[in-house]
Amino acid sequence: MSWRVDSASIDDLARGAAVLGTGGGGDPYIGALLAKRAIAEHGPVTAVRLDELPEDALVLTVAMMGAPTVMVEKLPGLDEVMGPVRALGTYLGRPVTHVACAEAGGVNSTIPIAAAAALGLPLVDGDGMGRAFPELQMVLPTLYGVSASPLAFSDEKGNVGVLQTVDNLWTERIARVAAVEMGCSIMISGFAMSGAQARESLVDGSLRQCIDLGAGIREARELKLDPVERVAGLLGGRELFSGKVVDVQRGTTSGFARGTARIDGAGELTLRFQNEHLIAELDGRTLATTPDLIMVLEHDSGEPITTEGLRYGQRVRVLAAPSDPRWHSEEALAMVGPRYFGYDIPAHRFDGTVSAVHA
Amino acid sequence: MSWRVDSASIDDLARGAAVLGTGGGGDPYIGALLAKRAIAEHGPVTAVRLDELPEDALVLTVAMMGAPTVMVEKLPGLDEVMGPVRALGTYLGRPVTHVACAEAGGVNSTIPIAAAAALGLPLVDGDGMGRAFPELQMVLPTLYGVSASPLAFSDEKGNVGVLQTVDNLWTERIARVAAVEMGCSIMISGFAMSGAQARESLVDGSLRQCIDLGAGIREARELKLDPVERVAGLLGGRELFSGKVVDVQRGTTSGFARGTARIDGAGELTLRFQNEHLIAELDGRTLATTPDLIMVLEHDSGEPITTEGLRYGQRVRVLAAPSDPRWHSEEALAMVGPRYFGYDIPAHRFDGTVSAVHA
Repeated sequence: MSWRVDSASIDDLARGAAVLGTGGGGDPYIGALLAKRAIAEHGPVTAVRLDELPEDALVLTVAMMGAPTVMVEKLPGLDEVMGPVRALGTYLGRPVTHVACAEAGGVNSTIPIAAAAALGLPLVDGDGMGRAFPELQMVLPTLYGVSASPLAFSDEKGNVGVLQTVDNLWTERIARVAAVEMGCSIMISGFAMSGAQARESLVDGSLRQCIDLGAGIREARELKLDPVERVAGLLGGRELFSGKVVDVQRGTTSGFARGTARIDGAGELTLRFQNEHLIAELDGRTLATTPDLIMVLEHDSGEPITTEGLRYGQRVRVLAAPSDPRWHSEEALAMVGPRYFGYDIPAHRFDGTVSAVHA
Repeated sequence: MSWRVDSASIDDLARGAAVLGTGGGGDPYIGALLAKRAIAEHGPVTAVRLDELPEDALVLTVAMMGAPTVMVEKLPGLDEVMGPVRALGTYLGRPVTHVACAEAGGVNSTIPIAAAAALGLPLVDGDGMGRAFPELQMVLPTLYGVSASPLAFSDEKGNVGVLQTVDNLWTERIARVAAVEMGCSIMISGFAMSGAQARESLVDGSLRQCIDLGAGIREARELKLDPVERVAGLLGGRELFSGKVVDVQRGTTSGFARGTARIDGAGELTLRFQNEHLIAELDGRTLATTPDLIMVLEHDSGEPITTEGLRYGQRVRVLAAPSDPRWHSEEALAMVGPRYFGYDIPAHRFDGTVSAVHA
């Protein structure tokens, strides 16, 4: 059954997306603003379940690429959000039928809503990760042989490009340097998929899940229950740690927001991130790693905190939750496991077990 | 009258192009190899004068972009040379009728010959500079309002991109970072022009001039005359300095081969270059600068020496010659004058006079 994404659901959705953003994906407030503005101007968006997609659909992802820290100062307009979808539709010479989220996380859950509203297209209730990851090729469709290219990109000045690359890592490499040169934040559209390919390779129901997570936090607050516990329950995850942020080191390098945060509590928890949280270590012992989800929530309100929102003195709780199981295959771990990011450790699952796969 | 570029003329043409390359443009031997291979496989190329171009021609430039130092190790194949022209033709949805040189210099005078031969297209006897310059936007067509984009680029791996930018400087910026990421050497095609636009904005007869220069050097050697004097005469230039190379500093930064060379003779001559020679100073006094041509030739043989070919101990002579007069307008000097390259001096003409234009 298709359903409607209206303005009233955007705050819940944006907050839930910030949870699944696992520290990345940018300021949910900005993403919500953009989606609300698009819905106010163009009406609500029809969300379509994966099993409703026609076989011959032409589904394109749309997303922001760059350092989310930059986007806070450079809010995209609706023309900018539509730009790459239109450019890619023209390049492909076929009408685009659906827009989809590349990731479930932060602005990249709400930008596709804005794009779908402005373009008058339905939105797929699903995404390419079931969480957020920092690089373009890190989506399940890559594992199913879906090409990221042709990929269109555009900036707020009106510069547009279309890439056709030999693999999805090359799309990432060329689009990333273009993004850095173009001001560290561009809009991209790619991963052209048929309905059948989308059904096979996307994570089902992630927009609905974002709304459920956001609503869960809101309702728990209203009922004076524990929002953090509610999030852990909805995601089948667990609380790793509770404490106070005592140090945050970060820098924007090569178009990414990279850094570490230290949290003081019953011991010291270290978080290592590249846009998203990648590793949680307690006194030097690894508790959880990518691809499982590591999330930082404000201690009492359960408000998700992005890596750029981390500040000295914040009282926070750190959760871990399972990723889509497909992220734990050998091929997937080679793409998103700790070793890809330069940490010579195996993947640690949210429950503390260690992956047997040596990717 | 159209004429034929055959294999027998390639060595002269490549040597002449290396002279006009003013230190840049890469190894003429490599460019000649590529053009000869293409002519051997596909037959000679028809060179068309600017006044013969039909009004409704679709002329595209084709060139190598990147650090020529890299291309020495990475000889492009014919498929690679044709790649961006084909991609751009497809993007434009119209048949390309002519290929043109963006610059008269080094490999970028011979790559269009290879492209024209392999594609079975006529080649315009003209180019966008009348010399070589290091950046993509630095062509006379930019001054005549011709857009560099859509611009197609491709590498030897099979990665292709098409850019549509707001101005030619943005085409340079995005293509440049892509070139660096793609291995510091890519093929590009752009500056789509009608016959009328090409007639208005290109430098006429520069292929013929390259052959005349190369033949002039060869003949002077055969007749035991002075090849360097011959080059100076053909270009209407003068000899600035004669001496021995005593120091060369260079590095490949941001995709360019940047550096300085010092030559010891009657005083010390310093050359400053970014792919091409930009400034010649004698004991700290500026003798000549961009946009006029500064060329280094081997002392006796008159063999042109590229900046990457400069070595300690070489006996050389340094010539200066006038550029196309259109390069001395205020708008042109803002694009290619010394100040653009970071030197706070006015343009010095080859004859030692100083430009009145304060660009």
